[in-house]
Amino acid sequence: MSEFDLINRYFKALPQQRDDVVLGIGDDCAILQVTEGKQLVVSTDTLVAGVHFPENTLAYDIGYKSLAVNLSDLAAMGAEPAWVTLCLTLPEENNDWLAQFVKGFSELLIKYNMQLVGGDTTRGPLSISVHVSGFVDQGKAFRRDAANPGDLIYVTGSIGDAGLGLKKRLHYITADSLTLCVNKLNRPQPRNDVALALVDSCVCAIDISDGLLADLGHICKQSECGADIFMDKIPLSNELTSFYGDRVDVNQVLTSGDDYELCFTVNEQYKSRIDEISRKLDIPISCIGKITSGDRVNCFDTNNNIIEINKTGFQHF
Amino acid sequence: MSEFDLINRYFKALPQQRDDVVLGIGDDCAILQVTEGKQLVVSTDTLVAGVHFPENTLAYDIGYKSLAVNLSDLAAMGAEPAWVTLCLTLPEENNDWLAQFVKGFSELLIKYNMQLVGGDTTRGPLSISVHVSGFVDQGKAFRRDAANPGDLIYVTGSIGDAGLGLKKRLHYITADSLTLCVNKLNRPQPRNDVALALVDSCVCAIDISDGLLADLGHICKQSECGADIFMDKIPLSNELTSFYGDRVDVNQVLTSGDDYELCFTVNEQYKSRIDEISRKLDIPISCIGKITSGDRVNCFDTNNNIIEINKTGFQHF
Repeated sequence: MSEFDLINRYFKALPQQRDDVVLGIGDDCAILQVTEGKQLVVSTDTLVAGVHFPENTLAYDIGYKSLAVNLSDLAAMGAEPAWVTLCLTLPEENNDWLAQFVKGFSELLIKYNMQLVGGDTTRGPLSISVHVSGFVDQGKAFRRDAANPGDLIYVTGSIGDAGLGLKKRLHYITADSLTLCVNKLNRPQPRNDVALALVDSCVCAIDISDGLLADLGHICKQSECGADIFMDKIPLSNELTSFYGDRVDVNQVLTSGDDYELCFTVNEQYKSRIDEISRKLDIPISCIGKITSGDRVNCFDTNNNIIEINKTGFQHF
Repeated sequence: MSEFDLINRYFKALPQQRDDVVLGIGDDCAILQVTEGKQLVVSTDTLVAGVHFPENTLAYDIGYKSLAVNLSDLAAMGAEPAWVTLCLTLPEENNDWLAQFVKGFSELLIKYNMQLVGGDTTRGPLSISVHVSGFVDQGKAFRRDAANPGDLIYVTGSIGDAGLGLKKRLHYITADSLTLCVNKLNRPQPRNDVALALVDSCVCAIDISDGLLADLGHICKQSECGADIFMDKIPLSNELTSFYGDRVDVNQVLTSGDDYELCFTVNEQYKSRIDEISRKLDIPISCIGKITSGDRVNCFDTNNNIIEINKTGFQHF
């Protein structure tokens, strides 16, 4: 039995099978049904050992994260998750590793009612490519080019934790406990629930994978606008502020990636609706500033001075 | 500029942009429109250096083949090609390599009117994962489980060339010239034109990637039937027969993979139509036997004896 047969056997045993999967794994292709009036939304991401996660990361976490980062892209479009394909390259046969990987992967698969509809396993250096598909109602996708001056800028959760977690993980810093930050690095919570609650209020979003400044910069560039954000409004976790004490590393918070929080903009009229969504889902959603008619992203300190930043976002190359 | 921006810039310069791509590369996801009444057909395949192609294969050929093998899966479903995503992992920055890769990839992209709608470039050992999407009319996809006893079995092109080309390429054999066989290995012709011409005659197909016996075996297993095929009806290229002379290596022909020819079954009533399609497209399509009510694939020699085969098909693991 090939490793993909093993993977498939595991996924087939999961309780959920989607009605829109006409033919799943086992033929040359899957056959899928897109509901009338819906648009298809697709994304793909690769995770490479030693580049996107440290070599000794748990198989469960690798499986979890490889789907999480792709789900996060669907969240950034306001899309309802549906189908996944998985290309897995493994250095050696290792059923224990595979079982753990599949468990981590399927945690999110089950949570978001997705179905694995295809894939490939090959021998080689550890690498995972995932392709996800989802749906939006006609013309309802969130787009990076849709922000308008005056829009409020929001972020979910807290910012900078995953970057701090990575520093701890790589032993760049010593700290007794940064459990939540390391966990955020290994098992980010994609914000699909928030995204789906936002479909009637929001038209512009991005997920924070490269760092808040860089990702908000993508919105501004594509929407041809600027942004003013305020350092004291950026949501920070207790663990992060405890670690830094009085001197939060602003660079770290604004430019470290891998948080997979959602950054979105809405017209001011929706302010109370956003607060209500935050309460209802019990997920922090913080207003951090406003879209401007300028052409750059400025972050202000408490004295209303612009904070100068050395680097903007993570670039793999 | 990231390497994916470079790739994107190249592809954006191509003349064709599909009408059903609402939003292409540049956001978190692409937004795509599936025509009413159509079903979506998807597949994904990974090519790893040293596993799926020798390390020193030309970048053009790697680009070409990584799309060809995926197109071949769409052909096996009778699907019209539409969209592609590309995950490319590269060991180092090398613009010349990348330019050649993109040229090879886009040769087929242009030929089949496909559009690149997303992707990812990462640093690491050379590996390419491609995801393709296409369309079939409702219920019209070819399926492995749809063969019936009495159906005629056809294959396109010639069989066994790519396997012989690989032997030459790896210096397992010495031969003055096996140009066509090596070319078949490096630049297989996916049979999408044949597939689309077959949509009203054929309900069952597979592409020959693992070897004729193994792939026909998949059809038989999933259709719960057997097959009788005849060695002297299996189409062989002049180059292959010249190389082997009087003693064609039957194992080689029946079990070597990578040909990416189409193997399909049709009801006997369509015999003349298949001949017509073959003439019209100027592509050999040969009847090699019949589906039976048995449960195994038998290949007969000219004395009507069953040929015993040592191995059935290529397994990466």
